[in-house]
Amino acid sequence: MLSPLTVIPVEGLPEFREGDVLADAIAGAVALEAGDVVVVTQKAVSKVEGRLVAVDPDDPLSHKALVESEAVRIVRRRGDLIITETAHGFLCANSGVDLSNVEAGFAALLPVDADRSARRIRDGLRARTGLAVGVVVSDTFGRAWRKGVTDVAIGVAGVAAVIDLRGTKDALGRELEVTEVCVADEIASAAELVMGKSRAVPAAVVRGVDPAWLREGSVADEIVRPPAEDLFR
Amino acid sequence: MLSPLTVIPVEGLPEFREGDVLADAIAGAVALEAGDVVVVTQKAVSKVEGRLVAVDPDDPLSHKALVESEAVRIVRRRGDLIITETAHGFLCANSGVDLSNVEAGFAALLPVDADRSARRIRDGLRARTGLAVGVVVSDTFGRAWRKGVTDVAIGVAGVAAVIDLRGTKDALGRELEVTEVCVADEIASAAELVMGKSRAVPAAVVRGVDPAWLREGSVADEIVRPPAEDLFR
Repeated sequence: MLSPLTVIPVEGLPEFREGDVLADAIAGAVALEAGDVVVVTQKAVSKVEGRLVAVDPDDPLSHKALVESEAVRIVRRRGDLIITETAHGFLCANSGVDLSNVEAGFAALLPVDADRSARRIRDGLRARTGLAVGVVVSDTFGRAWRKGVTDVAIGVAGVAAVIDLRGTKDALGRELEVTEVCVADEIASAAELVMGKSRAVPAAVVRGVDPAWLREGSVADEIVRPPAEDLFR
Repeated sequence: MLSPLTVIPVEGLPEFREGDVLADAIAGAVALEAGDVVVVTQKAVSKVEGRLVAVDPDDPLSHKALVESEAVRIVRRRGDLIITETAHGFLCANSGVDLSNVEAGFAALLPVDADRSARRIRDGLRARTGLAVGVVVSDTFGRAWRKGVTDVAIGVAGVAAVIDLRGTKDALGRELEVTEVCVADEIASAAELVMGKSRAVPAAVVRGVDPAWLREGSVADEIVRPPAEDLFR
């Protein structure tokens, strides 16, 4: 029998500040098991990594200047909406600069390297619990063609970003046409279903993923599509 | 305490054929509960709806002609990769025409109207079980900018496609900036994590979604971004 997957919101976490150790807080708030994947929101990571910067809430240009300084390229602009490419290679609104769930007068920037952020959390969880778990740092991005945002992975550690099914046969014994599945984005989306946007739940545990996915992983190397291969920027 | 979400693969389903009743098979294979969301793959829906068409497996042009006939517009083309816009307004590879998990010599087309397909399954499940459940018809799409495919919703019934958090406050009491979350795509992605690509598991049950999401829904009306609003086609 195939196992179900369980997605557990991590409750009781404090409002995080620069220098807080996410692994300590998470290990203290939930009983982890080997093979779990812990999903942590970008907002929590940015706060502990000191990625908050002051903005003037009454001056929209203050936010706009920040968005442009975090962009390597402005990809599209319409009205107030700015789609940029970030130094990480992400295409997203406002370079990922975000005012929600941040103290008034501040904006949160993306982590400098969210794969590294994920590794730090994974290493901390291993030190605290002795368990090997995967970690996904998630953020909320819009996308082309479809309305509404979904959560995606911006960093991973100890879990695959993309699995390669090349050579795998389908249920009828034929080679699969679609071979690269972005499980890290799917894990981030599953976690968002329990975290919500308005509740103070910055982490979730996804229990029961395929153990074969628990390997070294990297959003930067596996998910970010090189510009030369991208038909839509 | 917040509830966890559980994603249960529906095992023991038969290989579906035209005319089979998906609701009967699913209700017989899994014990549903009120408030569940049942995710069914496009492939299963297309099979029971007779959306298989003959192709010559030795003639790539046979598949290509089908892809073009299912497109209202070719959006991009590079080598063998064709991104099209379908009559539904979806942007995807090969107009959603797919040879995997289909008998040799046939290709599966997308359902004509997957919201209607989802309503039919929901109505059948209600008739069989007396329970009100949501239904998502899922398919596997690539996307701009990010490598790997993920599962998304192509039809829904009895569950929101996009929830609107406008007016909702964040954990610190500020208005949210991001207000429209595509929960149907997140539910489809969560289900894919247990369905895999190579296993014969064409359905999953997502248990524990926010009851407020269980309302009438429509991918066509809520997710498909009108061309005039789309910056990337």
